[in-house]
Amino acid sequence: MGSHVIDLVMLRNNFGTEEMRKLWDDEARITAQLKAEAALAKAEGDLGIIPREAAEEIVLAVEKGNFDVGEIAKQSADSKHSLIATIRALQKEAGESGEYVHYGATTQDIVDTGNMLMLKDSYDLVYRDVCEIIRILAKTAKEYQYVTMAGRTHATQALPITFGYKVAVWLDEFGRHRERLEECTKRVFVGSMSGAVGTYASFGPLGIEIEKRTMEYLGLETPNICWMAARDRFAEYASIIASISASLGKIGNEFYNLMRTEINEIEEQFTPGKIGSSTMPHKRNPAAFEGLASLTPAVLESVSLIYRSAHMEHERDAMSWRLEWIALPEMNIYIAYQLASLKSIIAGIKVNKERMYENMKLQKGLLLSEKVMFEVGKIFGKQTAHEIIYEIAMKTFEDERSFADELMENEVIAAHFDRNQVDEWLRPEKYTGLAAEKVDEVILALVQKGYLSDKIS
Amino acid sequence: MGSHVIDLVMLRNNFGTEEMRKLWDDEARITAQLKAEAALAKAEGDLGIIPREAAEEIVLAVEKGNFDVGEIAKQSADSKHSLIATIRALQKEAGESGEYVHYGATTQDIVDTGNMLMLKDSYDLVYRDVCEIIRILAKTAKEYQYVTMAGRTHATQALPITFGYKVAVWLDEFGRHRERLEECTKRVFVGSMSGAVGTYASFGPLGIEIEKRTMEYLGLETPNICWMAARDRFAEYASIIASISASLGKIGNEFYNLMRTEINEIEEQFTPGKIGSSTMPHKRNPAAFEGLASLTPAVLESVSLIYRSAHMEHERDAMSWRLEWIALPEMNIYIAYQLASLKSIIAGIKVNKERMYENMKLQKGLLLSEKVMFEVGKIFGKQTAHEIIYEIAMKTFEDERSFADELMENEVIAAHFDRNQVDEWLRPEKYTGLAAEKVDEVILALVQKGYLSDKIS
Amino acid sequence: MGSHVIDLVMLRNNFGTEEMRKLWDDEARITAQLKAEAALAKAEGDLGIIPREAAEEIVLAVEKGNFDVGEIAKQSADSKHSLIATIRALQKEAGESGEYVHYGATTQDIVDTGNMLMLKDSYDLVYRDVCEIIRILAKTAKEYQYVTMAGRTHATQALPITFGYKVAVWLDEFGRHRERLEECTKRVFVGSMSGAVGTYASFGPLGIEIEKRTMEYLGLETPNICWMAARDRFAEYASIIASISASLGKIGNEFYNLMRTEINEIEEQFTPGKIGSSTMPHKRNPAAFEGLASLTPAVLESVSLIYRSAHMEHERDAMSWRLEWIALPEMNIYIAYQLASLKSIIAGIKVNKERMYENMKLQKGLLLSEKVMFEVGKIFGKQTAHEIIYEIAMKTFEDERSFADELMENEVIAAHFDRNQVDEWLRPEKYTGLAAEKVDEVILALVQKGYLSDKIS
Amino acid sequence: MGSHVIDLVMLRNNFGTEEMRKLWDDEARITAQLKAEAALAKAEGDLGIIPREAAEEIVLAVEKGNFDVGEIAKQSADSKHSLIATIRALQKEAGESGEYVHYGATTQDIVDTGNMLMLKDSYDLVYRDVCEIIRILAKTAKEYQYVTMAGRTHATQALPITFGYKVAVWLDEFGRHRERLEECTKRVFVGSMSGAVGTYASFGPLGIEIEKRTMEYLGLETPNICWMAARDRFAEYASIIASISASLGKIGNEFYNLMRTEINEIEEQFTPGKIGSSTMPHKRNPAAFEGLASLTPAVLESVSLIYRSAHMEHERDAMSWRLEWIALPEMNIYIAYQLASLKSIIAGIKVNKERMYENMKLQKGLLLSEKVMFEVGKIFGKQTAHEIIYEIAMKTFEDERSFADELMENEVIAAHFDRNQVDEWLRPEKYTGLAAEKVDEVILALVQKGYLSDKIS
Repeated sequence: MGSHVIDLVMLRNNFGTEEMRKLWDDEARITAQLKAEAALAKAEGDLGIIPREAAEEIVLAVEKGNFDVGEIAKQSADSKHSLIATIRALQKEAGESGEYVHYGATTQDIVDTGNMLMLKDSYDLVYRDVCEIIRILAKTAKEYQYVTMAGRTHATQALPITFGYKVAVWLDEFGRHRERLEECTKRVFVGSMSGAVGTYASFGPLGIEIEKRTMEYLGLETPNICWMAARDRFAEYASIIASISASLGKIGNEFYNLMRTEINEIEEQFTPGKIGSSTMPHKRNPAAFEGLASLTPAVLESVSLIYRSAHMEHERDAMSWRLEWIALPEMNIYIAYQLASLKSIIAGIKVNKERMYENMKLQKGLLLSEKVMFEVGKIFGKQTAHEIIYEIAMKTFEDERSFADELMENEVIAAHFDRNQVDEWLRPEKYTGLAAEKVDEVILALVQKGYLSDKIS
Repeated sequence: MGSHVIDLVMLRNNFGTEEMRKLWDDEARITAQLKAEAALAKAEGDLGIIPREAAEEIVLAVEKGNFDVGEIAKQSADSKHSLIATIRALQKEAGESGEYVHYGATTQDIVDTGNMLMLKDSYDLVYRDVCEIIRILAKTAKEYQYVTMAGRTHATQALPITFGYKVAVWLDEFGRHRERLEECTKRVFVGSMSGAVGTYASFGPLGIEIEKRTMEYLGLETPNICWMAARDRFAEYASIIASISASLGKIGNEFYNLMRTEINEIEEQFTPGKIGSSTMPHKRNPAAFEGLASLTPAVLESVSLIYRSAHMEHERDAMSWRLEWIALPEMNIYIAYQLASLKSIIAGIKVNKERMYENMKLQKGLLLSEKVMFEVGKIFGKQTAHEIIYEIAMKTFEDERSFADELMENEVIAAHFDRNQVDEWLRPEKYTGLAAEKVDEVILALVQKGYLSDKIS
Repeated sequence: MGSHVIDLVMLRNNFGTEEMRKLWDDEARITAQLKAEAALAKAEGDLGIIPREAAEEIVLAVEKGNFDVGEIAKQSADSKHSLIATIRALQKEAGESGEYVHYGATTQDIVDTGNMLMLKDSYDLVYRDVCEIIRILAKTAKEYQYVTMAGRTHATQALPITFGYKVAVWLDEFGRHRERLEECTKRVFVGSMSGAVGTYASFGPLGIEIEKRTMEYLGLETPNICWMAARDRFAEYASIIASISASLGKIGNEFYNLMRTEINEIEEQFTPGKIGSSTMPHKRNPAAFEGLASLTPAVLESVSLIYRSAHMEHERDAMSWRLEWIALPEMNIYIAYQLASLKSIIAGIKVNKERMYENMKLQKGLLLSEKVMFEVGKIFGKQTAHEIIYEIAMKTFEDERSFADELMENEVIAAHFDRNQVDEWLRPEKYTGLAAEKVDEVILALVQKGYLSDKIS
Repeated sequence: MGSHVIDLVMLRNNFGTEEMRKLWDDEARITAQLKAEAALAKAEGDLGIIPREAAEEIVLAVEKGNFDVGEIAKQSADSKHSLIATIRALQKEAGESGEYVHYGATTQDIVDTGNMLMLKDSYDLVYRDVCEIIRILAKTAKEYQYVTMAGRTHATQALPITFGYKVAVWLDEFGRHRERLEECTKRVFVGSMSGAVGTYASFGPLGIEIEKRTMEYLGLETPNICWMAARDRFAEYASIIASISASLGKIGNEFYNLMRTEINEIEEQFTPGKIGSSTMPHKRNPAAFEGLASLTPAVLESVSLIYRSAHMEHERDAMSWRLEWIALPEMNIYIAYQLASLKSIIAGIKVNKERMYENMKLQKGLLLSEKVMFEVGKIFGKQTAHEIIYEIAMKTFEDERSFADELMENEVIAAHFDRNQVDEWLRPEKYTGLAAEKVDEVILALVQKGYLSDKIS
């Protein structure tokens, strides 16, 4: 029975996904490390560092997979060494050839390479979901391309936008995230097989070739030089996760705000029987929105740990890398939840178009003050118009009357414009600028990058 | 099988203790929440809010404990509500009286009160260990009260101290930690039973009395007013954990540095068969020291999450409290490891007194430059002496010769002092000032506070 | 011209206060350090460590204050030593007695003691403002004790509260902050005068007495043992600042949310001529609320730095203490702004009572679903009532009709209750529970602690 | 007089550089914002949105620069609006054409674009220094390519490396940093000119073209869509700064450790007259190394603030962007110091080759245990050899005798090898593996990327 919220049966599915959790459990860890040992043996067999048959037996033992993960895990715990038990289990399975297991490698080679294999699998899930979210957001942006709503700055209504425009801002952001994910792979997914202090001394003159072949077998890049003391690779991956998570959290928070009783423009999916409160029967909470938003601070703390872990002393120290063992699973599991959550949220989201339109009337026309200012400015100059309209707007605000009425009562305005003109200016759907065009522009840019197909649907 | 390092069979005992993990698993959570429900029922029975027999049946059902934790956990996961499944299980066990389960309470009352019960149990372990560490450090400080070693500032040798003095600095620090732990309880361990928005509306006019009795049954304090939107209690606890963890990490790092090959003044316990490296047979690593030091950054990130979680909106929101579910178990589990680790480290530590003494000779006498300056200053004034000795010291440094030789070659010095005097000044054990007295002073202060018995042993 | 936002002429008054900034500028720093040197000289003069006349001259030189702060600052910069220039300036001013300046002390003694003097002055301002905020919040809580408004959980309307109740939650919180501030002083404001490695070796056998007297002259506590390597004092202070700042930020955010166009229950002071936007004349932004809320994350980062700075190596290292030089001024300056901001905000706040009442109607009666459930539960049992009301509430929600209408159309309800009863249940001002009583209870508790006078006004 | 350490005359040059501070002071801020206004006017003049002559006059007014920065700063402070005073000053300077200043723009357009201009200037300094550090590290790696020293893992001696190899690990890291800096520019340095909510409504149908031209004049990229609510650009820049700073801090800490009295392999430049301590004349502290290392935690906190600031609500909010005003200057000023510091440190560093060699003897031969194991393993198999050598090594450790002696006393070893062989194995300079080759390999990779010229010197 687990104790961290990531492993509590009761809560874990609100903080992670089964799929991602599996990539970081005891079994995944041991499996990745055995893969690294097998690839090393194979490379060493190819190059005659160890007998070819020994290599084959080691590879076979790994492939057969007759390992009692629970037992290895237990022995690891007992020996207080994170790898020795795994090596011994493999050695035993490999029979006589066991002498050639882990030949020339240092523990950190296997742990780091194993971690990279696990991280790469995690990355694949993250990348898959980011790609899918791009498609989903594009579809959503198109669907609501022309649905007018209040744009808000400082939490107060500013000017009209469209809901599709709001979504397109996120879409553009996820386009950049995908680009970042693609650019980082060549630097990040790099293994390590260079011995105790990275000099290949134990491997002999063919050390560099052994490492290269091992990485080819594993599908990882080969480093220019050992990175046991240079952990910027994890930091780069973590940075991208931080940024994706920040976007996800922001969207969750945005929906949460738009679902406020008083705003009510967005509602998360309600399924009959879903209970919001044990004491208030009417409650429909933005629970999924909150869940999505809540994990960003948690991801940021994990990312911060990764930055701290870069502080390696000399050729390596365990104070630093132990932080990676904490933070890498955490950030991947949390982000997996956030990504899955956004997909599911958007699939079920309810957009209250009527309420969006009604809400724009709350300021009795003031939402369009800029429009009025520019129209009036055509006659008086913009700065002067700002002063005139500012006075009328403040009066409107204080009097809680209609902006149109106040405008028409102003002599200067009334001298140049009639009520019909003013009423026309105050129609929010007429002053969304290029909001809708921007939706198409963002989509076009992503189509050109190959992130979206021509046909959004 | 867990995925967070706190729950990995392979690694968990290097990141937590069995004892503390048990306080935060699914069972502990459900049990604490059921206790809160039972106490509420009892209080409501006393006051006639619900029938007394119903209260008794509910209490009995909780005491019997016929709950399938796995099943409740599973249903909680399915219903996406963290408490409803528990309430329903209790309702079922309570038969007819089930109608009176959770009467007037809101979910958050139970979750917060349950969390406080769990936190208090965690606190007890932390407090126990802090008290024990005070005893252990006092004993260690006395044991090495007069063992001279180099004091170091900026990682370079400064002046002699004693090892007992170094330990006494930590001892004094842990005295403050204990004081903080004692002072916080009245503010921190406070339950909550005031209904959906803290107004007791559902409890009626006796609401305040219900809450008071419930808390008395649970051994928790009663708040002046509902704290669902005021989470400084968790922040206060977390702050103290941060500070204790910082002390523990610092000590781990200090030992780690003192075990460097080149310093070698401290060694962590070595037991035959312990393996430091899979490829370097000679390696004896400061693995326990590193383990102790490594968790402080992790604790600090959890503490940071708690500070963030104070950002409650309105009467409460789930974005904030979900962070508590992550951070409270984390920080308690990590600190439990650190506390246990320090106890075990000190029990087995090896202090190389000879090496401590030898190391003080590395600067060929310069370690005592201050002593020489003050002696010379008696004749020339301190500032002037600083200039004279500075020049000789720098020369000693460059020439890699003996400070005594260089001093005696200086005409000014040689005119006033003879070699015997100088040699006497340069004996480090003669210039430890009041280091040893301070050990006794710190211990005395703690005896007076009742934190130590008169007899340190 | 400054470069940090704390010192930008353009922006600094939105990130700090003149009063607090002055406590941390070059002059304040040098002055505090000179005070420490004077007190040391005086103590040493008393005890015959240095000639009494020398001590008097040194004290006189400090009191005269003929120091060119700019010049000292410049020389400090040039010498790359943070104190030597100050010592030399004092030595020069003290004439012959200059030889006895800084006698036996180490730089860190003066820097740490100086920092404590500065911190204590900062503390005084923080404490003053916390005390004042307690009075202001008490007055506000009383003023709006009975003003009914929607309580909100998960950002959606839950049950009625009163605005005074909401404020009383904050008031109670600030009561705890004051208590924490008072409790910390004995541990936090402690000076240091024990020489290079804390052993008083340079001071001789009277070292402990010198330190004690020096601290008495300075109004600081004397430590049990040197704390150059034990920085938990700063961490304790920082923790309290973190918690106060979290409360302040939460209140800022709460007001910000309540000022949303769609909620509009609170408005920050508007003064004619205040401009919200350079392009939208109608804009009235919650600028002060945002300013108040925005600085909490910044304070938390400074606090985090202080925790990191506890990681001292050996008897001290500069990597750690340099972080204190960054973080202590930052956190004090930011919190000074937040405290001043809250005082000014509350002085000018506009509470829209009518809108508060109107908003409670937005859910067409559902706000009182709990009340209905308990009334219905008297007949059917609470859990059963939950099920009945849940169904009706969900229907009300979907149909966007009146809850009372839906209730009366339900056969079960209609069979037992009439419309008048139901209408009575749905009056929010009748279901605020003990919200108003709690205001008095919190105030009473603070009166009993001496934090408030009997007469709140 | 400033109050933040970045602006304290006394300390600022240890926390920043004059050059970088100038890019973030009041003048720089106002200048960047005026540049943005001028570019906007020019673009609008081109497109006939405002009269071409008005545009010219505005541009001219900006170019003339008759602005009283102090006065604008003061008025900004008074008006509590960060831009209005600047606009008014420009308006005044532009005479009649002043009506067309800031035409259609929102404050945030100018602030964000201005910030990007400032950030780009900061980037240029960072990029310049990273490029230079690559050259310096390459030269240093070559200089010490074959200088043998102990490689250390867990702070204890592991196996020999060369000092050049250690430096090459950093060099490779900085190669990646440069690559990251180059890749980010297309995403990061993007301006904004799209009006109050990013819809160009105030600009009319040519809005997109206005923005594009404005950005071309400013040398910034044009966004696909407004990024007022999408701040990942700053996060991406900040991430790279975090990673560079982590590398710099790690190097500072490495030198600090290597300068320990007991290790003494590296010394920072000593210049006659430099004073390490006010009371210990002999002290030579690693002050520059500590200064370099100390700022990494500070940078990480600033970076963390930037991640937090991504949490924009709706179309924008001030709580978030105010954090950017704190964090962007901080991180750039701190990193500027770190970069300058590393350059200066390496220029003056003293490498004690003899001590490096002597230190490798401290374990009396055990440093080469791996080598011995592999030689012995040729006969007995590696795992078996590990067991044999492990026993002898542990005995050597306990007895504090020579490894060679202990080996020769072992019957199994003595039966197969003679003393000469063993002595040969134990020569550290013979077992540095491919350390020196790796130096060349890293340099070659960077030459191929165009980061280094063929000729390293």
